[in-house]
Amino acid sequence: MKYVVSLSGGMDSSTLIYDLLEKGNKVKAITFDYGQRHIKEINSAKDIALHAGIDHEVIDVSFLKALLPGSSLTDDKVAVPEGHYESESMKDTVVPNRNMIFTSILAAHALAIGYDGVALGIHAGDHAIYPDCRPEWAARVLAAVKVGNWEADEFQMITPFVDMSKTDICKRGLELGVPYELTTTCYNGGAEACGKCGSCQERLEAFRDSGAIDPISYESYLKQLLLS
Amino acid sequence: MKYVVSLSGGMDSSTLIYDLLEKGNKVKAITFDYGQRHIKEINSAKDIALHAGIDHEVIDVSFLKALLPGSSLTDDKVAVPEGHYESESMKDTVVPNRNMIFTSILAAHALAIGYDGVALGIHAGDHAIYPDCRPEWAARVLAAVKVGNWEADEFQMITPFVDMSKTDICKRGLELGVPYELTTTCYNGGAEACGKCGSCQERLEAFRDSGAIDPISYESYLKQLLLS
Repeated sequence: MKYVVSLSGGMDSSTLIYDLLEKGNKVKAITFDYGQRHIKEINSAKDIALHAGIDHEVIDVSFLKALLPGSSLTDDKVAVPEGHYESESMKDTVVPNRNMIFTSILAAHALAIGYDGVALGIHAGDHAIYPDCRPEWAARVLAAVKVGNWEADEFQMITPFVDMSKTDICKRGLELGVPYELTTTCYNGGAEACGKCGSCQERLEAFRDSGAIDPISYESYLKQLLLS
Repeated sequence: MKYVVSLSGGMDSSTLIYDLLEKGNKVKAITFDYGQRHIKEINSAKDIALHAGIDHEVIDVSFLKALLPGSSLTDDKVAVPEGHYESESMKDTVVPNRNMIFTSILAAHALAIGYDGVALGIHAGDHAIYPDCRPEWAARVLAAVKVGNWEADEFQMITPFVDMSKTDICKRGLELGVPYELTTTCYNGGAEACGKCGSCQERLEAFRDSGAIDPISYESYLKQLLLS
């Protein structure tokens, strides 16, 4: 089968690509570019696509900023809030319905290039926090795509990680030899991962619970603390 | 109620706005900007929003081009095919699943600014040609939006024209005093409408069947022919 996948440059989507390839599928990756805060992630995505040997396209979705109230005035000057990326303080920077926009775009591309469907990296760890990472959401989006396009009855939307935790994904990735040293997870986007933000904490936990050492660099004092 | 509406600058979406306003709703319009071929439509949309006295935002969706195979190479140099805009020759310029992308964006904005929902101008005349203009499609998109977002149980997706023909819409618009002289329908985007393309023909028919004269200018020899 041939699937279009969203590649953020993080662990889940990278592992998804290697998982699909290992099962004999063809994969094309799309990375959504929001603006400069994500350049490190975009470079990670490019490196992973190159390593995996798959087609990759970066799509400019900077229009998302215009969807949030006030953002057209403040534009790039909106400060990135500190703290956990899933917390209340982040609410103002998150576009509602975002995953449906992205999945609609992935499906559009899959249909345009004659692929069988879309593979999503949604996983169990996100279900409680993000309603648009749940299987019932994916089923409804798929229903809309099938009804809304000619010759789309066989269109697929697969979610291989939907019942897996972050740790399960990490274990699967280690098995597959996913080059985690190329991935970017830290919300703060520095040269080294901060180790403090929610994303870093979740990643470090997943590696620890998998009995492995995360190959990326953390701000050193923290690394020693976290790995001690 | 407060609705976000896609305003193309054509008859359907313009009439929808006046219809909603007349019923006492608040309306915000979004125009999707694909690239320069649509500048005339965008100016029409701006004029209509100004005339209607509503908020209006133009969203850059030029990323759509990247979704079609080959378009990243040819970019703006892809020739606009001649002929009816619903015909086979146009297939290469149409992104599949496009209306789902747009509706997802409208819903995202409605949720972000606290509006009650989205109003779509889909009508009976389009059902046979566009699967993503049918009520069963709209119902599935709404189901996905409701499940995929917090506090979206009451979110609405209304389609006031879903059972109306183009002529019905035209009659309704004439009743409402929609400034049709400001709208743009012609696919060719010249200073005067060509009168030959499928869009122009459909529009002229709607006016004729409504017993009214279309206030926009057509290339003169054709106008005489068509109104004779």
